[in-house]
Amino acid sequence: MTSTPKMTTTNDLNQVLTNIDENLQLSVSRLMTFLKIPSISTDPAYKSDCRTAAQWLTDQLNDLGFNASLRDTPGHPMVVAHYIVNDSTNANGKHVPHILFYGHYDVQPPEPLEEWNSPPFEPIIKTGEDSIERIFARGASDDKGQLLTFIEAVRAMINASFIQPLNMTLLFEGEEESGSPSLDAFLAENSDELSHDVALVCDTGMWDAQTPAITTRLRGMVHEEVTISGPEIDLHSGLYGGAAINPIRVLTKILGDMHNENGTITIDGFYDGVSELPDETAEQWNKLNASAQELLNDVGLSEAAGEKEHSILEQVWSRPTADVNGIWGGYTGAGTKTVIPAKASAKISFRLVGEQDPAKVLQGFRDFVKQRLPSDCKVSFFDEGGASPALEISQDNHYLKQAAVALEDEFGKKPVMMGCGGSIPIVGAFKEVLGMDSILVGFALSDDAIHSPNEKYDVNSFHKGIRSWARIIAALGS
Amino acid sequence: MTSTPKMTTTNDLNQVLTNIDENLQLSVSRLMTFLKIPSISTDPAYKSDCRTAAQWLTDQLNDLGFNASLRDTPGHPMVVAHYIVNDSTNANGKHVPHILFYGHYDVQPPEPLEEWNSPPFEPIIKTGEDSIERIFARGASDDKGQLLTFIEAVRAMINASFIQPLNMTLLFEGEEESGSPSLDAFLAENSDELSHDVALVCDTGMWDAQTPAITTRLRGMVHEEVTISGPEIDLHSGLYGGAAINPIRVLTKILGDMHNENGTITIDGFYDGVSELPDETAEQWNKLNASAQELLNDVGLSEAAGEKEHSILEQVWSRPTADVNGIWGGYTGAGTKTVIPAKASAKISFRLVGEQDPAKVLQGFRDFVKQRLPSDCKVSFFDEGGASPALEISQDNHYLKQAAVALEDEFGKKPVMMGCGGSIPIVGAFKEVLGMDSILVGFALSDDAIHSPNEKYDVNSFHKGIRSWARIIAALGS
Repeated sequence: MTSTPKMTTTNDLNQVLTNIDENLQLSVSRLMTFLKIPSISTDPAYKSDCRTAAQWLTDQLNDLGFNASLRDTPGHPMVVAHYIVNDSTNANGKHVPHILFYGHYDVQPPEPLEEWNSPPFEPIIKTGEDSIERIFARGASDDKGQLLTFIEAVRAMINASFIQPLNMTLLFEGEEESGSPSLDAFLAENSDELSHDVALVCDTGMWDAQTPAITTRLRGMVHEEVTISGPEIDLHSGLYGGAAINPIRVLTKILGDMHNENGTITIDGFYDGVSELPDETAEQWNKLNASAQELLNDVGLSEAAGEKEHSILEQVWSRPTADVNGIWGGYTGAGTKTVIPAKASAKISFRLVGEQDPAKVLQGFRDFVKQRLPSDCKVSFFDEGGASPALEISQDNHYLKQAAVALEDEFGKKPVMMGCGGSIPIVGAFKEVLGMDSILVGFALSDDAIHSPNEKYDVNSFHKGIRSWARIIAALGS
Repeated sequence: MTSTPKMTTTNDLNQVLTNIDENLQLSVSRLMTFLKIPSISTDPAYKSDCRTAAQWLTDQLNDLGFNASLRDTPGHPMVVAHYIVNDSTNANGKHVPHILFYGHYDVQPPEPLEEWNSPPFEPIIKTGEDSIERIFARGASDDKGQLLTFIEAVRAMINASFIQPLNMTLLFEGEEESGSPSLDAFLAENSDELSHDVALVCDTGMWDAQTPAITTRLRGMVHEEVTISGPEIDLHSGLYGGAAINPIRVLTKILGDMHNENGTITIDGFYDGVSELPDETAEQWNKLNASAQELLNDVGLSEAAGEKEHSILEQVWSRPTADVNGIWGGYTGAGTKTVIPAKASAKISFRLVGEQDPAKVLQGFRDFVKQRLPSDCKVSFFDEGGASPALEISQDNHYLKQAAVALEDEFGKKPVMMGCGGSIPIVGAFKEVLGMDSILVGFALSDDAIHSPNEKYDVNSFHKGIRSWARIIAALGS
């Protein structure tokens, strides 16, 4: 907030892009250095390595002219860095935007180690038979490579003295892969320092290697555990089989009725707040020609299992779901035990879209169960917590539009306005704690093997990512 | 087979019954002695106690004039005793029946001990506020008290020199409560010695304290484990939820469809071989006025959950069932995990009646599942083994009719021809290995708490049981 570096500025973005191209090897070598730090947040044995990674980022940013500092939390430290070029209103009376960029320096554990072709923390560049250069290491894509695209873009802009009227705060977290336990409190305690016009998050993917993407829809979620009880104790099915109600029979009947033959969810009021896709988005998604065969092939499936009247992209990006994530009851060991169990349970989760209200969805499910409950059975519900509504950034958002044009300039084609089937907790936290929308731009590819052995990031992804951020920063500050 | 005691015979059954009444205290004291032996077959610590119990029986029977011996098995010993009064054809050319009586001297473990009002192996007689005398001890009813009714009946007949033209072989097992691992082989190896005209088994109950019963129907059983597989690996429901088929959804749908709203099982061909109850039996059962409220009250239920058009007695005695005994899939631990699991499984068992063919029922279930399986899913079945058809003794069976008349003579009312919802393995073994039908006559009451703390046997049950066997033996030998 205090640093106001004095710089001459130019307006030649091309000079910045040339600088990026010419210095790509240096950028890559910095990434390689960063990747050597085994900053595994879930394993206490790597606590000091997490701090080393945070310190490395802090040093890089201070060297670049940021006012950067490592901030302790109850877990791993945060890094906060400011680059303030101007007051919030410039000489012409125009508002100077202030963005918050987010990434995370921690990585997933690399296990199983024996499946790696090279050690996970000894990054290596390999050129494939397809002539594509790839950087292999844990964190190459998620999220060290991705977050560095932004820093390297800023570096090139500073090198080229291309300083836009744009204030920047950078936030790097070290606990993303372990559930971000310190994040909400840190945001709340430092909201003045962190709450600005818009957040930029680099932790998502492109549509494909040639097609950029902005993730504009994140499904929400609500969880529930349900237990159906029947007899007071487990019964012998010889003595009671036929006469005594079996809670597994009741539970399977109810859960089996939750979808009809078209894949539509049958809970009353479930679709309240769900809108059809805007025509423009629908058209764009249709043009992607995504087939179930293609999208599900990697997991051994070939048919979209959701609502039949919706495409597979809609099914994962813009349609709600009801999934049983776990079920248990009765005897589940080896051999047989002819028991009629006293109870049976399931864990259910609903992915939410649009304006669906998590509380109403939960209530709808509870009513659905109760309406189908035989009079001899009881039901108990346990709200697992962690409910979140869907998040959607309006396609009219000013910053979104600027970022979209910048990406189109770089790739020569419009970015796909993607959905993300799951929640991204940081986006919810920025919205809830800081009141900020997030623009999610990332350069990962679906074959990056994040969280898996042999994680990689294409050198081209890294390169295009740096160039894209330079263009986006230029656009936001224009 | 070799002992042919020479005895004078009388034809005065009344003398026998008087002898029983007069010597009841001696009979009870013998039972108390027997109950002090902690012959727990499942616990190796009580191995020598099991042998002691077997030896006690052997000694009792040899003292009575039987040719009794203790027979070693890989587990606990059997006791086999013969009382051969005649060749298989007597002087008049009439066939002399040879019966096989069965009981078991082993008992269930007594735990939880703290719930017993008196030590389980220190038998005690208590007179309740209802003036009923009860013998409390582990095994009082199941099966030491029950098997001793037969021995004491024989003792009284011998004491009264009332020897009928009836050859008797007695078989006492010491592994009934631990799954009878040595039984089938022992029967097969000794089939010449054990295979006779009919088996009498004393291990079942009366309808109530005033109403005798013969158990004439035992449901059969067939087991199956089914696993539905979808994706090759567990999937994140954020990425794939909606598009990827969830095997739990498929499994619950299929199992939920297995019963219709009338409780009828919807598997094609499932009811092949199931007959309606004969009018006479239906009438007898109806007269029992058994209500669901009453029969299910102890387990916290009040409504019969089976086929709506059949009474609760039919539902447990003469109708087949489909029960899910266990179900599991996905995440079942604490908290949430938004997984679409690769597979989901269930254990199913079918109780069979009449002429239902276990193999056909299993095939019908497999077809039912396959017909409902989405093309992206696979199913695997694991036949758990242990299939057995239903067993039913014809109400025209000569020995059954004789036993029924004898019981009516003793109780002043016809015995109820009961069903038993579960299988009784010994009856299947006698049928399959020895080719013998079994007549199941027992004097247990539903409040005897067998397998539970404070097991008891009413002194009256014991007394009426002894008298009943004397009448049955007299009838069979008449």
